Amino acid sequence: MQNDPVDAGKELNSDLNVIFKPKTVAVIGASRDPDKIGYQIVLNLKDGGYTGRIVPINPKADEILGIKCYPSLKDVEGDIELAIISIPAKYTPAAARECGERGVKGIIIVASGFSEVGNHQLEADLVNALKGYQTRLLGPNVVGLMNNTIRLNASFGPYLPYPGKIGMVSQSGAMIIALDARTWVDRIGMSYLVSIGNMADLNFSDLVTFLVNDSDTSCISLYVEGIKDGRGFLDAAKVSKKPIVMLKSGRSMHGSIAASSHTGSLAGSDKVYDGAMKQAGILRANTIDDLFDKSLALSLQPTMKGPNMLIITNGGGIGVLATDAGEMYGVPVDTPSDELRQKLSKFMPEFGSTKNPIDLTAMATGSSYQDAVRTALDDDGVDGLVVLYCEVSNLDPQIAAKSILKGKMEAKNTKPMCVGFVGGEQSRRAIEWLQKNEIPSYPSPEKAVMSMSTLRQHEILNQSICLTNSEMAGFDKAGVSKLLMDTKKSGTTILSELDSKKVFSMYGIQVNQMELARNEEDLKTIAGKFRFPVAMKIQSQDITHKFDVGGVRLNVKSQNEMTAAFRDIMASVKEKAPDARLEGIVVEDMLKPGLETIVGTLKDPSFGPTVMFGMGGTNVEVLGDVSFRVAPVCREDASAMISETMISKLFRGTRGRPDLDSEAVIDTLMRISWLAMNHPEIKEIDANPVMVYEKGAIAVDARIILQ
Amino acid sequence: MQNDPVDAGKELNSDLNVIFKPKTVAVIGASRDPDKIGYQIVLNLKDGGYTGRIVPINPKADEILGIKCYPSLKDVEGDIELAIISIPAKYTPAAARECGERGVKGIIIVASGFSEVGNHQLEADLVNALKGYQTRLLGPNVVGLMNNTIRLNASFGPYLPYPGKIGMVSQSGAMIIALDARTWVDRIGMSYLVSIGNMADLNFSDLVTFLVNDSDTSCISLYVEGIKDGRGFLDAAKVSKKPIVMLKSGRSMHGSIAASSHTGSLAGSDKVYDGAMKQAGILRANTIDDLFDKSLALSLQPTMKGPNMLIITNGGGIGVLATDAGEMYGVPVDTPSDELRQKLSKFMPEFGSTKNPIDLTAMATGSSYQDAVRTALDDDGVDGLVVLYCEVSNLDPQIAAKSILKGKMEAKNTKPMCVGFVGGEQSRRAIEWLQKNEIPSYPSPEKAVMSMSTLRQHEILNQSICLTNSEMAGFDKAGVSKLLMDTKKSGTTILSELDSKKVFSMYGIQVNQMELARNEEDLKTIAGKFRFPVAMKIQSQDITHKFDVGGVRLNVKSQNEMTAAFRDIMASVKEKAPDARLEGIVVEDMLKPGLETIVGTLKDPSFGPTVMFGMGGTNVEVLGDVSFRVAPVCREDASAMISETMISKLFRGTRGRPDLDSEAVIDTLMRISWLAMNHPEIKEIDANPVMVYEKGAIAVDARIILQ
Repeated sequence: MQNDPVDAGKELNSDLNVIFKPKTVAVIGASRDPDKIGYQIVLNLKDGGYTGRIVPINPKADEILGIKCYPSLKDVEGDIELAIISIPAKYTPAAARECGERGVKGIIIVASGFSEVGNHQLEADLVNALKGYQTRLLGPNVVGLMNNTIRLNASFGPYLPYPGKIGMVSQSGAMIIALDARTWVDRIGMSYLVSIGNMADLNFSDLVTFLVNDSDTSCISLYVEGIKDGRGFLDAAKVSKKPIVMLKSGRSMHGSIAASSHTGSLAGSDKVYDGAMKQAGILRANTIDDLFDKSLALSLQPTMKGPNMLIITNGGGIGVLATDAGEMYGVPVDTPSDELRQKLSKFMPEFGSTKNPIDLTAMATGSSYQDAVRTALDDDGVDGLVVLYCEVSNLDPQIAAKSILKGKMEAKNTKPMCVGFVGGEQSRRAIEWLQKNEIPSYPSPEKAVMSMSTLRQHEILNQSICLTNSEMAGFDKAGVSKLLMDTKKSGTTILSELDSKKVFSMYGIQVNQMELARNEEDLKTIAGKFRFPVAMKIQSQDITHKFDVGGVRLNVKSQNEMTAAFRDIMASVKEKAPDARLEGIVVEDMLKPGLETIVGTLKDPSFGPTVMFGMGGTNVEVLGDVSFRVAPVCREDASAMISETMISKLFRGTRGRPDLDSEAVIDTLMRISWLAMNHPEIKEIDANPVMVYEKGAIAVDARIILQ
Repeated sequence: MQNDPVDAGKELNSDLNVIFKPKTVAVIGASRDPDKIGYQIVLNLKDGGYTGRIVPINPKADEILGIKCYPSLKDVEGDIELAIISIPAKYTPAAARECGERGVKGIIIVASGFSEVGNHQLEADLVNALKGYQTRLLGPNVVGLMNNTIRLNASFGPYLPYPGKIGMVSQSGAMIIALDARTWVDRIGMSYLVSIGNMADLNFSDLVTFLVNDSDTSCISLYVEGIKDGRGFLDAAKVSKKPIVMLKSGRSMHGSIAASSHTGSLAGSDKVYDGAMKQAGILRANTIDDLFDKSLALSLQPTMKGPNMLIITNGGGIGVLATDAGEMYGVPVDTPSDELRQKLSKFMPEFGSTKNPIDLTAMATGSSYQDAVRTALDDDGVDGLVVLYCEVSNLDPQIAAKSILKGKMEAKNTKPMCVGFVGGEQSRRAIEWLQKNEIPSYPSPEKAVMSMSTLRQHEILNQSICLTNSEMAGFDKAGVSKLLMDTKKSGTTILSELDSKKVFSMYGIQVNQMELARNEEDLKTIAGKFRFPVAMKIQSQDITHKFDVGGVRLNVKSQNEMTAAFRDIMASVKEKAPDARLEGIVVEDMLKPGLETIVGTLKDPSFGPTVMFGMGGTNVEVLGDVSFRVAPVCREDASAMISETMISKLFRGTRGRPDLDSEAVIDTLMRISWLAMNHPEIKEIDANPVMVYEKGAIAVDARIILQ
């Protein structure tokens, strides 16, 4: 496997609890100069309300901000769980080593000037300085760690975020302070806000694992620019029952990896990220706003267990917009049961509506909201409730908000509820009040529905995660390894179609029958193995465009035609490509036309072996109708990959034709993913087309490329 | 033409200026009871700061809120430009007639209880009451009219919106008050906020035309639930140089119209709206937030004339997110000229970046922002500038905001600039301050980029509007009319493939050659007209599935084979479909395979004859890769239709194959659009497939369905 998870990190993860909830925090580089970060950090620790012991280290000071200073770590009595190091980059390796010696559990290195500016050696020195110690490192190049649960502001960000249940980790230090400030405007509460920096040691896998196990955190929010240990990260995410939502920047910057296959050239790094995230149950945010909006709902409300969303509104306009949003975000509304409609009709005037959206009309009162909310939540046919309010003069937003909350509190269950208030300053205050009361609330109907759809998506994604994925039986690994080695020995890195299909067969991947006839003599035995008509193609490493040299015959109908075709092809090729080394002629089944799909694998720089599925044929790159998952894929992964593509719509039967065999495609995807996984010497695989039929899926062309 | 524009409305449009900027406003139904809308309206007129004359009409009162009351309209001296009628629905026709008699220029009817609840008769009575008078009607079922330019609040909404240049019209009355309130929170300024209600008279076309000509309005914003007079609306929008942005609700509700063609079943009303809006240069908003965000930028900034967007930032993270957004919204960033990079490098530390985004780094100061903004705007290679600020402790948001504005004011031109500030309360205030100074500003980098992309889209859409679209020459209209009439007379509404292709030919649409052989004798003359091989198909109104009755022969290679095939087909069909009336056998060209597209027309309930283009073949409905425009389409429309589809990517040459002939498809689309336009008896047309080649596009199948 290319990308081994950092196993060391996993073993030590329990320690993060000690580091992130320290009893004693040392500040190395603490300063009395208010312009220095070393001063700011001591001030923040003190001002933030941290109740543990603060230990400034400064050989030239007796006290800083009234706190006793120590000349060095050695002079401090008792355990030190966390040390924040705020000194110039070049001195940090020595300071880190001292922390290791002193038995400090974790250190935070604020300084920049490491790998982020190309100084990889200094970062390596830093990591080496900690070798042999149990000390973990956050950074370098970080703003620090904010832990609202113990009011620990171990950072140079001026204040702790608005308190709540979101554990947020950001790879951009610059954004930490801005996001921190924004939590107070949006009233979006955080348990942790962590700047992860260069990840010389602690990385996203470690942080995710810590937050998954942290009882004060209900939603994990990530701002990611790039992940090194992709597989470790996915493994950490997969075991999380808590929602993880991720904003991945740099979508547009990577482009495709240098590739010699369709699969490789289609794998813009973002498409692979997209597949990997789904596979690990991670929700995707598209913008900063989206990250905040989704985190809010995910941190405050349970998942939406079933598909039935009910909308309650006091305005038809915002109701229709919410309906549109439901369609757009994958939670379309349906008419509720007659029983529920009957009950709800009592809370509205004659001209209200009990279809979905439930329109209480502009006449809605506090008590009609309250009754409708309670009744809807208590109905078995409702899985999630979106409550909308459009500012009107006859119902104060604050009263609407209170009534909605009362209705929810009176309900006998804990189904998810999201709220949208459209209006002015009064509505804005009502939203803040609702959020303080743990109801995710938004200034538009669409966002309320979007957030509900996120609660639904989390449920669905979480259901389909494969935690274990055991290898399928019956692979001829030894046979494949030998064939790949022989190919390498022969001095090439590209397997012939024939050899590629042999490899496929050893992994149980269906291919059309092929036999190599080295000479006319061979045709006698070969003919008996086929049903006519067959196709015949010249086999030579030196010929790429077989058609152009007269190297292909289709529709060969008998043994006699076969012999004649053999001679014609040989004659034509020898004339048109006199220097080519000819291995013989491949005879193969002529298959009836099926749906042309493509199946392939590549090695992603973050995630290693990765599988692709999509629309096949000659235009795959143009249409780009493909999906990815990290190998190996389980049944659920493969099935989801198929459904994500447009071409999957053609699997459904039409006009009397039965459905196409998606099971066969799933099987092919699983097998090819194990092939890529088990044989790291494989760089890329293309099977294009894989013909899909009512029964079966057959790789008609195949190409394996070695490292 | 099905949907004639309401020409009457156009002639009278100049009057709207008088109505919407009245010198005297009467309130019919004015009340002294503060709980009554008739009181609220008088209060709003007075409190709003309207300086014209307010005339409450109430036979039982002398004065209301200190304003002299009149018993009836007749008792009022002088002109009355506008009357707001706030009395129960059933009395409104009589009141309207009185206004007509009195020479009132325009009336607003607040009451509901008309067509929106199914009471069409009362609405008709209302319209009839105004017959013969020059009086225009806004409503019924409206909140009213708010005109900030003269501080006229002629509505029961409690206050005027935040002042600015957006002219907003909403079809939802309930939303008016909420949107009004929200303008004050978001600091998004409006010139007009108009509730358009049931549109018994004044409709979107009228309002758009008024706002297009209004010098206080720079952007027209519409919330639309459904448009009756689709073509009038498009015509009004097309002539607007001002941006029009529209939120259309009910996307999910209409579904497909009842249809007997591919084209019809693919025309979900929303897809048609989408095409029609592009055709008229209207920008689309997806949500309420989006409508506000886009309107803000469009109302305050000029369009972006070229494709080059420059981003200035003080943080790498938000810079990358802005880059992603640029890609997503169709304004990808490019590296600026060396000259500009050189200049900008002076305003940042060593480790800054002069690529795009320009990263001033966290060390950015007010003056570096100011200098960078001025320098960027003055550079010829910059068409639009996005300035981002990520809240940091060393640069106050307010200072950043002021510096950005100063830089803009110092620049020698008026290129568009949009701003994104990520941060807390201070940043929020800076955003408000910038908006007051007419700089569209947003709390995220993505929205700043999105708004810039909207300024670019407006420029592009506006460039491609066809204001005149003269009919193409050489159509055999009489021939087509006769053939259609003959078909109707024969008792069917579906033209045979042969007749459909005849119609196509009369409009110059390329079809593969077809000839009907009624008997063997005919074959002699027919054979000479074809190049072999040909295809032969039974022709009969009574046979739909020709293959099943042995009614098709492909690859017929000579005249002898032709005669044999004729006999075989006739024999087979007579045996298998003994009751079918046989007209003969159609001989047609066998075409080489090309790219299969579909071209069609349908009648949309809002817009009338409408053209479709997309991916052809048997799976058109499944993949739904189609685009629409209202007929007739000009070159630019047709060209845009093609580019919107995925299949258009396959038009580009690959692997030595030249480009496909998009000109031929454009020609086909224009011709078929005139066919649908000129012959209202046509309900739907399907040409599927239209084969597209390197040279030419040929309709291989055709089907015309009559009303």
